[in-house]
Amino acid sequence: MNREQVEAAARRFSQARVQFLLRTPLWKLPGAMFGAEGAQVWLKLEQFQAGGSFKARGMLNRLLANDIPASGVIVASGGNAGIATAVAAKALGVRCEVFVPTVSSPAKQAKLRELGAHLVVTGDAYADALEACLARQRETGALLTHAYDQPEVVAGAGTLAKEIEEDGGLPDSVLVSVGGGGLIAGIASWFEDRARVVALEPELAPTLHASRAAGEPVDVKVAGIAADSLGAKRIGAIAWDVTQRHVHDALLLPDAAIRDAQLWLWKTMKLAVEPAAALPVAALQTGLYKPRAGETVCLVICGANLDPATLS
Amino acid sequence: MNREQVEAAARRFSQARVQFLLRTPLWKLPGAMFGAEGAQVWLKLEQFQAGGSFKARGMLNRLLANDIPASGVIVASGGNAGIATAVAAKALGVRCEVFVPTVSSPAKQAKLRELGAHLVVTGDAYADALEACLARQRETGALLTHAYDQPEVVAGAGTLAKEIEEDGGLPDSVLVSVGGGGLIAGIASWFEDRARVVALEPELAPTLHASRAAGEPVDVKVAGIAADSLGAKRIGAIAWDVTQRHVHDALLLPDAAIRDAQLWLWKTMKLAVEPAAALPVAALQTGLYKPRAGETVCLVICGANLDPATLS
Repeated sequence: MNREQVEAAARRFSQARVQFLLRTPLWKLPGAMFGAEGAQVWLKLEQFQAGGSFKARGMLNRLLANDIPASGVIVASGGNAGIATAVAAKALGVRCEVFVPTVSSPAKQAKLRELGAHLVVTGDAYADALEACLARQRETGALLTHAYDQPEVVAGAGTLAKEIEEDGGLPDSVLVSVGGGGLIAGIASWFEDRARVVALEPELAPTLHASRAAGEPVDVKVAGIAADSLGAKRIGAIAWDVTQRHVHDALLLPDAAIRDAQLWLWKTMKLAVEPAAALPVAALQTGLYKPRAGETVCLVICGANLDPATLS
Repeated sequence: MNREQVEAAARRFSQARVQFLLRTPLWKLPGAMFGAEGAQVWLKLEQFQAGGSFKARGMLNRLLANDIPASGVIVASGGNAGIATAVAAKALGVRCEVFVPTVSSPAKQAKLRELGAHLVVTGDAYADALEACLARQRETGALLTHAYDQPEVVAGAGTLAKEIEEDGGLPDSVLVSVGGGGLIAGIASWFEDRARVVALEPELAPTLHASRAAGEPVDVKVAGIAADSLGAKRIGAIAWDVTQRHVHDALLLPDAAIRDAQLWLWKTMKLAVEPAAALPVAALQTGLYKPRAGETVCLVICGANLDPATLS
């Protein structure tokens, strides 16, 4: 995975017959607002992306880079990856099957149906839904999308970093939430060592952190407020490789700090975001990450798939 | 009221010892997303302004342009104007008294108290709170702020238009919601006749529209979904003068279209905004305002003081 693959994804997007991805705003603010006096903070407002998260970039790239059979695309995910696949498939006018476990929320199921996806609700846990999805894929030959561990998905996510640089120049550092690692792998593939890319995870879902401690990818237990988006049990193989080369910090945040930052973002800044998107703000507000004076820190605000009532 | 007064406000902001106003993002999007194929749509995301609406600009300008007595500032408003006055007073470290009627919501009262305002809850209706406020002002000599009909307040709001032009160039048209008219007066003072500034009001709060029909400012009955922000009973004298010179369209929208646009903004774009901020989007989506092919239309998204649960 490298910078050229990100360039190729960006080219694919600009040449696609369907323009459904948005160029999301980069907003420059004084660091003092975030408790980082003397620094400059950039917010990459990627929660405004089509489908409400960065994931649409990766899914669209996966779909554009491959021939899509008549059986369409298929994915196992009740979260942002499922929504992003359905959104991208709808934009391209291709069939989409989404497998979710019975525990997935009725609201998410309704949203997927609304996006035109053929929904299969099966199994008690995600692993069961995934198994059924893979069996079905072997039967139909549909193009499988993975939430984070496919090269096209990672490269698509990396186009977000290319936009940051085009719109604002090179930041000194980029703070990114990590679940399965697709987003940070794309971003670090773009910046390589030209910016300090910092990984942030909930203490209760320390997927990358635990693997680094073990020296190799290991399974972790995941729970807590952001598990819905950041609850991958194991870091992706691509993300492991890229972060070993280009990411030097993997920091952990308690749920309370994540929730405080999420509520602060709404109350003070009128940004309605999901918990996973609040980790970069929490890292500044708690002092877990302390920028130098004059440092330019870019916070990736990665998603807004939430029930707004949870902000009341 | 003219462009020079807007320039003076912008100068005051840049020279103030306190930098609390934000330069809000201007986001350029394809018109097709809004049902305006062939046009380009710019969103001025002013709901991200300090205090959650454009009103902080006017209030800060009012406070910076005048000597503030020890008795501080005083305002009668349970809405965005009260919040904006309290936010600006807090930033400058001056005393702030806010008068609200007993019908104002406990949530708004709590927010005003949280901002450090001295709250006086009195009278059954807004007019009673205003009367008590004016009596108190005569007693203390505090600096009175008005929600929309003071030159400094209008000029402060106009700095939003200056930012649009600096960040994006000159748009062909600007769609703006109108309550008492402070915002549109500031914007039209800046653009004069260099851009087509279009006034939008709810059918149930047709303050400017009714005055234009009568040929002079008249009182109107106000009600409906956006009355909280756009429910001024009479257009401001400054706004009447400026709009007579520079605004040629005053269009009305039904509440249902406003609500649809508000819900669409959350669901599709992840923008959580109050009903008043949704009128420009509603005007495009309903076809009430039809841009020409190639037209650049700027939509002013003016506020986000809402209970997010209303978007669920």
